[in-house]
Amino acid sequence: MDPLEHGDLTVVDGLQINNWDRKVLEELKAGGVTGVNATCAVWEGPQETLRAVADWYELARDNADLVVLAENADDIRQAKRDGRLAVLLGFQNTSPFGDDYRMVEVFHRLGVRIAQLTYNIQNLVGGACYDEHDSGLTAYGRFIISEMNRVGMLVDLSHVGNRTSRDAIDASAGPVAITHANPLSFADSPRNKPDDVIDALAARGGVLGCCLYPNVIGGEKTTRRQFCEMVAALVERIGPDHVALGSDCTRNWSQDYVAWLRNGRWRPASAVPVEPQWPVWPNWFGGPADFPVLTEGLLEVGLDETVVAQVLGGNWLRLFDTVFPGAGQ
Amino acid sequence: MDPLEHGDLTVVDGLQINNWDRKVLEELKAGGVTGVNATCAVWEGPQETLRAVADWYELARDNADLVVLAENADDIRQAKRDGRLAVLLGFQNTSPFGDDYRMVEVFHRLGVRIAQLTYNIQNLVGGACYDEHDSGLTAYGRFIISEMNRVGMLVDLSHVGNRTSRDAIDASAGPVAITHANPLSFADSPRNKPDDVIDALAARGGVLGCCLYPNVIGGEKTTRRQFCEMVAALVERIGPDHVALGSDCTRNWSQDYVAWLRNGRWRPASAVPVEPQWPVWPNWFGGPADFPVLTEGLLEVGLDETVVAQVLGGNWLRLFDTVFPGAGQ
Repeated sequence: MDPLEHGDLTVVDGLQINNWDRKVLEELKAGGVTGVNATCAVWEGPQETLRAVADWYELARDNADLVVLAENADDIRQAKRDGRLAVLLGFQNTSPFGDDYRMVEVFHRLGVRIAQLTYNIQNLVGGACYDEHDSGLTAYGRFIISEMNRVGMLVDLSHVGNRTSRDAIDASAGPVAITHANPLSFADSPRNKPDDVIDALAARGGVLGCCLYPNVIGGEKTTRRQFCEMVAALVERIGPDHVALGSDCTRNWSQDYVAWLRNGRWRPASAVPVEPQWPVWPNWFGGPADFPVLTEGLLEVGLDETVVAQVLGGNWLRLFDTVFPGAGQ
Repeated sequence: MDPLEHGDLTVVDGLQINNWDRKVLEELKAGGVTGVNATCAVWEGPQETLRAVADWYELARDNADLVVLAENADDIRQAKRDGRLAVLLGFQNTSPFGDDYRMVEVFHRLGVRIAQLTYNIQNLVGGACYDEHDSGLTAYGRFIISEMNRVGMLVDLSHVGNRTSRDAIDASAGPVAITHANPLSFADSPRNKPDDVIDALAARGGVLGCCLYPNVIGGEKTTRRQFCEMVAALVERIGPDHVALGSDCTRNWSQDYVAWLRNGRWRPASAVPVEPQWPVWPNWFGGPADFPVLTEGLLEVGLDETVVAQVLGGNWLRLFDTVFPGAGQ
């Protein structure tokens, strides 16, 4: 058998939050990425999010040679055959649902397939990773999860508080995801996850996307080998079915977008002592074009080819197959 | 051949603006109505309209034995076979699109298939039937129509100003509708249409739904025979392919809904000298349960059975077949 090549894999990235344009789409193509969860809301409410979704319809139509909007795993598999990128629309917050659980179905019909419950701070649904006191999953949050289960939308626990994450794993009828975070034991960040959350996620069939964002890998100095050894250790501990990647790439944004991510409209910029800056990425992974080095790195640390294929995309596809067909249309 | 029976027809109503619940759905069933354009926005903006659409998803799910949300004419034909009512979601205004032409595609994906350009007063798209000066179709209005053409959404000119109506008929790549209005020559109301508008509509393959609303038939005293003779005369004048029905039924609303229809949020209730009241319907047509009398009445005034079948539903189905498959998804 020929050795595994990156180009043979159906590479699926658990999350990217780029400022999407044709050049960025080409970066993903250069990196051999076939599927991606593309963030189209962070702090936005229902109406603003409609515009973001409409932006995607337009971008996809204008670049149909490169990209297709996917609604399930088969759309991603088809994109692989067509040599295109399949984009799953995703939210990093439940703000697009406002206070109306029925907006889950509305956005599902518009093509949204993944929603993170909270983004950094407490919201109507639950507590977030930077909250001092995590409310746990709220009464409204339970209806949101039940509705996401019904229509077939994947619950994402990245940026979510640990208590709310445990509650959500228990509340969800099906497996859930942490699309972009690492074990807390690898790098000490509120964004990373303690073992009890990761274990509960895996026990229910969920998937964790190991994340390349500098702040959650211990900074730019972390080596490719260290990152890949963390992935391999996680595969060893929770099993090969539950580990994937979620790069958290942030391509093509200007500096002020960091301030939007951090402050939204919930606090004045003046409340933050130091103006937020984009972190420096490690020299071995600067963006979606660098995905091939991950395949290489995972093989180097001794993961077998089957497991590498699972981590690079197979596990996301299986999870999508499980969650998305619930579509209640 | 057996004589035509109402139950044999696929009855499609060009517009009803009921306060929908199970009891109202049963009234349509009692009237042998299979398809209906159900208004789910009059003054509402994008976000409020999302809620109205979500209301429909919920109502349809909770009453799946009686009703299905239709997206094309075949869904209506299937509903006839299943003995269910097929609801096309429709707007009586372009307010749900706000100032963003891309919302046409967004609401199309949510199932909306018909949108009236204006409701009673000038808006971003054009002038309305009660305006002293009709702007004509605006620059934005041209993009709205072009986008409706592209995705497959029917342009409705009821309540629209005559100048804007003529502009819209010319601007649209395909046929358009007047879902609920009558010839001005039948009853003098700003809501009714002069011959030049009706003729232009028909010349482009459009359909006019003759309307039962008391204010546009000359009041409750108008007889069934007078109404049916008007329909027959119109068939004679513009041809059997262009005449249908649009009852404008307003079932199950409380009195204050009339004020909402008239005043929206654009003028204070105090600006209106007399508090608006629902008009009294003629004794031969009080609601959707009374559709069979129309079949009877049209046969009585001498329309042949084929034409009656066209007027009661066939012409709407043909127009929907022409307009909806454009769906740009």
